[in-house]
Amino acid sequence: MIVTSVTVYVKEEHIDDFIEATIKNHNGSLQEKGNIRFDFLQCSNDATRFMLYEAFESKEAVDAHKETAHYLEWKETVASWMAKPREGVPHTVISPKDRSKW
Amino acid sequence: MIVTSVTVYVKEEHIDDFIEATIKNHNGSLQEKGNIRFDFLQCSNDATRFMLYEAFESKEAVDAHKETAHYLEWKETVASWMAKPREGVPHTVISPKDRSKW
Repeated sequence: MIVTSVTVYVKEEHIDDFIEATIKNHNGSLQEKGNIRFDFLQCSNDATRFMLYEAFESKEAVDAHKETAHYLEWKETVASWMAKPREGVPHTVISPKDRSKW
Repeated sequence: MIVTSVTVYVKEEHIDDFIEATIKNHNGSLQEKGNIRFDFLQCSNDATRFMLYEAFESKEAVDAHKETAHYLEWKETVASWMAKPREGVPHTVISPKDRSKW
């Protein structure tokens, strides 16, 4: 399993646009066979800061995600709305190891 | 619901100690009434970087967590093993809103 946390800073005037576009990507991603979670969060004390918490079954599933129409559309749509480049950090899972907990 | 992502950088010589102590905190946290998730992750390309992904029902549940024996023991035990102060970022949930998805 690979869990990637993606931190995104959005230009203030595009917060609502970003939320709308990312919910669309979120909904599409949850339909992918290799997707386990795709949480979309907003920082409580900085409305311009967001986190995507993306869990996939494998490296192959992550690669497949990056070729989906919803991801590619999201990537292109939100690019100019970001205040700086997004930071994606890939992780392995220490706990819980039990797949049913995901 | 409040979801806090905590990034921790650990001194290389204390990676194993940190993992052991944090699994203990993870196990205790999952027993808390107000806890929803407590994922413990290690960065795939930097073994000294960790993430805790902690979801709680409410601000009250987060406050209660910080008074538990397992949290206080963890906090004290790992303090000197950190390479720099940990960064906790609190979030609100945009999606999924459905509580059963957590």
